[in-house]
Amino acid sequence: MEYSELLKKLEELIKAPSYHMVGKLKDVPLLLTTTEGVVNLSVLRGDKLDRITKDPIAELANPKPQLDYVPIIRDVERGKELHSIFVVNLKGEEYELASPKMRITSIAYDEKAVVFTGSTQDSTALYMVEDGKLRKIVELPPFSAITDVDGDHIAGYGVFTKNFRSFEIFLADKSGEVKVITPKEGSVNTPSAFKEGKLYFISDYEYSGEREWIYAYDVKSGEISRVKFTYDDLEKSQPTSLSINPDDRLVIASKNGESKLYIDGKEIKTPEGNVTGATKVGDKVYFTHTHLLNKSTIYLHDLRDSTTRVVIDSSASIKGKVEFMKVKNGDVEVPTFIVTPENKKDVGVIYVHGGPWGSVDNSWDTIIASLLINGYVVIAPNFRGSMGYGNKFMLMDIGDLGGGDLSDVVRVRDYIVEKKVVSKVGIMGYSYGGYMTLLALGREPDKWDFGVAGAAVADWVEMYELGDSFFKGFITMVFNGGNKELMKERSPISYVENVKAPLCVIQPQNDSRTPALPVLKYCLRLQELGKKFELHLIPDMGHIPYTVDDTMKIILPAVLFLERETKKEKS
Amino acid sequence: MEYSELLKKLEELIKAPSYHMVGKLKDVPLLLTTTEGVVNLSVLRGDKLDRITKDPIAELANPKPQLDYVPIIRDVERGKELHSIFVVNLKGEEYELASPKMRITSIAYDEKAVVFTGSTQDSTALYMVEDGKLRKIVELPPFSAITDVDGDHIAGYGVFTKNFRSFEIFLADKSGEVKVITPKEGSVNTPSAFKEGKLYFISDYEYSGEREWIYAYDVKSGEISRVKFTYDDLEKSQPTSLSINPDDRLVIASKNGESKLYIDGKEIKTPEGNVTGATKVGDKVYFTHTHLLNKSTIYLHDLRDSTTRVVIDSSASIKGKVEFMKVKNGDVEVPTFIVTPENKKDVGVIYVHGGPWGSVDNSWDTIIASLLINGYVVIAPNFRGSMGYGNKFMLMDIGDLGGGDLSDVVRVRDYIVEKKVVSKVGIMGYSYGGYMTLLALGREPDKWDFGVAGAAVADWVEMYELGDSFFKGFITMVFNGGNKELMKERSPISYVENVKAPLCVIQPQNDSRTPALPVLKYCLRLQELGKKFELHLIPDMGHIPYTVDDTMKIILPAVLFLERETKKEKS
Repeated sequence: MEYSELLKKLEELIKAPSYHMVGKLKDVPLLLTTTEGVVNLSVLRGDKLDRITKDPIAELANPKPQLDYVPIIRDVERGKELHSIFVVNLKGEEYELASPKMRITSIAYDEKAVVFTGSTQDSTALYMVEDGKLRKIVELPPFSAITDVDGDHIAGYGVFTKNFRSFEIFLADKSGEVKVITPKEGSVNTPSAFKEGKLYFISDYEYSGEREWIYAYDVKSGEISRVKFTYDDLEKSQPTSLSINPDDRLVIASKNGESKLYIDGKEIKTPEGNVTGATKVGDKVYFTHTHLLNKSTIYLHDLRDSTTRVVIDSSASIKGKVEFMKVKNGDVEVPTFIVTPENKKDVGVIYVHGGPWGSVDNSWDTIIASLLINGYVVIAPNFRGSMGYGNKFMLMDIGDLGGGDLSDVVRVRDYIVEKKVVSKVGIMGYSYGGYMTLLALGREPDKWDFGVAGAAVADWVEMYELGDSFFKGFITMVFNGGNKELMKERSPISYVENVKAPLCVIQPQNDSRTPALPVLKYCLRLQELGKKFELHLIPDMGHIPYTVDDTMKIILPAVLFLERETKKEKS
Repeated sequence: MEYSELLKKLEELIKAPSYHMVGKLKDVPLLLTTTEGVVNLSVLRGDKLDRITKDPIAELANPKPQLDYVPIIRDVERGKELHSIFVVNLKGEEYELASPKMRITSIAYDEKAVVFTGSTQDSTALYMVEDGKLRKIVELPPFSAITDVDGDHIAGYGVFTKNFRSFEIFLADKSGEVKVITPKEGSVNTPSAFKEGKLYFISDYEYSGEREWIYAYDVKSGEISRVKFTYDDLEKSQPTSLSINPDDRLVIASKNGESKLYIDGKEIKTPEGNVTGATKVGDKVYFTHTHLLNKSTIYLHDLRDSTTRVVIDSSASIKGKVEFMKVKNGDVEVPTFIVTPENKKDVGVIYVHGGPWGSVDNSWDTIIASLLINGYVVIAPNFRGSMGYGNKFMLMDIGDLGGGDLSDVVRVRDYIVEKKVVSKVGIMGYSYGGYMTLLALGREPDKWDFGVAGAAVADWVEMYELGDSFFKGFITMVFNGGNKELMKERSPISYVENVKAPLCVIQPQNDSRTPALPVLKYCLRLQELGKKFELHLIPDMGHIPYTVDDTMKIILPAVLFLERETKKEKS
């Protein structure tokens, strides 16, 4: 094998910039980009991108159009997700606002303050920086987040009842008073932003968790009203999930792994794939778009003549075919993407996404792309628990992680084999996908020709012990209040004896979500049992890759492993 | 960093063929080569090499010129060193002779039989295959090997006394009778081959372990005589160590990391570096040659006109400078090579060789070469315990592994820093070199900017428990009869808390010499202690790389690690 040729292709792919529109500051479109190898912020001036941050950033607040700055957070402990808050302005000047060195799980700001939720070993709480002073406002349930602040109102959501399948909105004030808003018991609600005394939010309460719509909560009166638009394209499209920017009345709405952009309810014609972000500047709407075979493109839609043109071209693309289907697994239909590269091998990779509340949409995914350019057919099941198919479908995994969802993944694998799509099939995933990979190899050992598990959960019990309040909250929730017996039963470490297929384990050393220690112990057991596997433990990196080099560290060992295993099949 | 460019250079270097003359069959020169990516046998016909084996081979018997075949051994358990014996002839035909599936530590043959020493969990013994039947002849001390068989006489060596600093010759017959021959108590003796009723052997008994000469033992009379040659170049050169092919009266003699070829005592002029093997066909002497900056070259010396010409050119070379010096460490002088590549970085790697009874000579070494092409200055100390500087020097490490030898390595490091050769210094090694790396990082944590430990010993006690009879014998010997307290005191696992420098650990999964399990446990401790390190556990591979891909698996993670650590120094 010529490693260098393989790597050259990989490098091109990973280094190609990505663009993700996040909003605007003073009429200047703001994007999350990876233009120079790290995740950074850029602004679009004319048809040109200007990078305004240097060091990698982890997250940012929703930009406020009336301001010329935005708070961002940075990981200051080499991937351990201990964050500091910085403020960066349009000129690219930045300063450190506060360094709480805790996991910041959400952040918002207005003219006066920056508020955020932070998680330590002990608790999750709402914090505020005002007049240069950091203070804790109030403790919150562990799995809470905020989305906006407007004067004395802070909007967020979390699980405030014993029903782990519902998400309530909350309104907090700076004194620490928290008001919980539930349009309907058991519904899932997430606030978007304040506008003119109203809090816009997304809810499924009228659709029994099958799909969502946009509502406005009147902060004074407490009345909830359904948001209506001038055009009815959006209403007719019956999207499964939505997001709204109330300032511009821009909505991105998704269904079956595709998303469209709507302006005041009117659909903007876009190619197949997903609109990832949009912002309106006068008569111009800038948006970013992606596709499983196209990394990302910046478009400009002119409202005056309803024309759309490319501002910056897709930076990487792959030749191939994307299919979408729903594979039946008992009562459940598993939405599945099958992506076949032009020069396909007779080897398929069941690619399991992270989350579990994530998805594989018709959107660029660096791991999938890395597989495609090497000829693998990628089959990506959106197992129960995936996002984008209604909250009911998403929350089916509460109390059943590694149960029904695993059976969905295995069913899709069986379908692929029955249909003779490929003759060899392995499984691969990162984070929750890494967990599913280890669990699948242990519980269904005869189904797989190989496995690649990145940043996996090997042991829920130990992960719980090592987690901070946020992750403890998450695990408690998904295991029905923290059922230890179930956690054991659903942990890959309990099935390590059964593993048969060659396995590649990749683990960032500083991972604060799926910690390295249980993965190392899992590998030690594999070695004691004489199993064939490889392990790559990667330093100076946490769960999330922030740079091209981070991404390389994860993908390179996986691709080399697959090439070796595939070569063997041939000989 | 452009991984692909870096790898392209690496690939060229590793893929370049290597040539090592091992003898002749029916006047056809036979070579161990890596011409097509794997360790194989080739024959030289005219100026052209013909490969005669397909699958990688682990070892072969000394070829007998009167025969047209040679026995070879192969690892049949993916690097676990469970061997089978094959016979291959000049036409490239081969068949399996026996599959004892044990570690074969030495092999020899004649017209009638193939004999070998094999090691299981329980014992080391002498075995024979005659008339297609495999049988055990006699058990031997654990650390024994044979070098020749001639009818009923089998020649070997081993530790037959309680003095671990002496090696006795033994003569065994096929009935299992073993006769031990000691020219002088406490001397080190290794047999070469039988010729006309005499066993030629190398001994240091006349030189108190400072250097060696060649002797002949008369099998009938038991008389020992000093071998004399027609020319006196060899005698005058006072070589430290020697090897002889008595058939052709060819001697290769070394001193200070350089070796020369002598024909009947007369020196053949060769470039600086090392002659690695030679054979005589009529008036022609074919030999292979290597240098730290030149991979290997096949030469032909014509005895008729005393001319020497290149038959096959060196397949890879590096521009740079080789220096040799002896660095004082108390009473010990540490022979050290310093190799500086043309485009040197300000970073030095103290490269510690394996063994411990090995050496870095002025010979190509793939790891060193991989460092040089990336600009690192390589400093290779031949610490006490190294070969090529007299057996007394070599056996100084008995009872003191990880003691005096470590102090030699650290002293050389200090010298390099004092002389400002480079401003950053790390340590790197494979096998015993990996052990020294871990130990150095743990016992002298402030001395190193980084460390790379391949196939390391992390824990002598656990390694002993996991070892077969051969390795148990080795460990018993080097720890003065197996002193457990000393083994603990000299184990890196005892100092894991102290490790400071960033560390890269590379470990073959099927390693039967330095097993993976203690290394994994060491790494688990590192992780528990929050140390920064990376780990690459590599499947389908044992201690010894048999293919280009095996070599890549070891070197690639090391080079990428060094590049990352070096980059950081700059920024």
